Amino acid sequence: MNIEEFLQLCAGKWFAHRTSHDFANNKSEEGKSEIIVENLPVEHPEVVKICQHYQIQPNPISFGAKFNWNDTTKLNQKNVGSTVVVLVPDADNPHQGKLLHQFPPGGGKQIAGRYEMGSDEALTLITESDTIYSEERLWFASPNLRMRVSVTKVNGDFTTTAFTSEIRMGVPPAAKTSQAA
Amino acid sequence: MNIEEFLQLCAGKWFAHRTSHDFANNKSEEGKSEIIVENLPVEHPEVVKICQHYQIQPNPISFGAKFNWNDTTKLNQKNVGSTVVVLVPDADNPHQGKLLHQFPPGGGKQIAGRYEMGSDEALTLITESDTIYSEERLWFASPNLRMRVSVTKVNGDFTTTAFTSEIRMGVPPAAKTSQAA
Repeated sequence: MNIEEFLQLCAGKWFAHRTSHDFANNKSEEGKSEIIVENLPVEHPEVVKICQHYQIQPNPISFGAKFNWNDTTKLNQKNVGSTVVVLVPDADNPHQGKLLHQFPPGGGKQIAGRYEMGSDEALTLITESDTIYSEERLWFASPNLRMRVSVTKVNGDFTTTAFTSEIRMGVPPAAKTSQAA
Repeated sequence: MNIEEFLQLCAGKWFAHRTSHDFANNKSEEGKSEIIVENLPVEHPEVVKICQHYQIQPNPISFGAKFNWNDTTKLNQKNVGSTVVVLVPDADNPHQGKLLHQFPPGGGKQIAGRYEMGSDEALTLITESDTIYSEERLWFASPNLRMRVSVTKVNGDFTTTAFTSEIRMGVPPAAKTSQAA
């Protein structure tokens, strides 16, 4: 699976069950969410705008993805939102490249992150701002079960880990047909 | 990091925080544990016994590891136990090989599992019995923070996922010195 196939498989509606482990307070927190992932073409206005903001020239193999969420915490608090990320593969190796966030994590200074698609078909996303470092690893246990684990460091210290099991609601997207077909 | 270095880094005492997501019942369960991991040499009686049981000849680059746990569930139930696993690298590629369990998961028929060390330094362990398929992925966020995620299928259906954050209690083991030194 290459990065393009991975992102295509991400598209769709998911039911997410998330647990975070907070080291400082030795406790965990749970949440549930509906997440809709849409792939955006490189010429999409939001993708273009983000690339301009980071002063990075997207290449034809860049991808955008929009994440829409509808969260419910254990205390029944609601949180609805969306964000866009852009992946700009390195010209010489599309298995890795830049990761551009629409909004910086934690509100700090925006720094382009990076992604890497491992040989074991796990996608690692690394994001940094002034004070926050976040590393997220995603993979598919099956086309309909996505796993996501993140670690966060604040000012160099690990503060939380989080685990999300995501189950597809509805059918997976059709496999991309060969353009030569 | 190769498989040997990975296992050496696993050795030690860990505080584990575990959460499982149960799909059938749409709920999660939490537990905490102290885990002690000891590496066992290939000539250790327990390693020899397991290899004999599976009728697999260990090679000089095989490894054994003993896991001792002391669990506390959220309901304060205690569970103390230990098990041994043996990794027998493939002769032509030590990044993958056989995974032998002392006891079969779920009490079913014992089938040799397999392991694979990914280019992203994550170790994947796959274990099967008659009815249960389990896939676990482990990696180090740092030498003192290990992450572990598993998925379990029973009779072909995903039933649970589990996430464990493990923090080292005490100092990491000293790096192995070269035998030639």
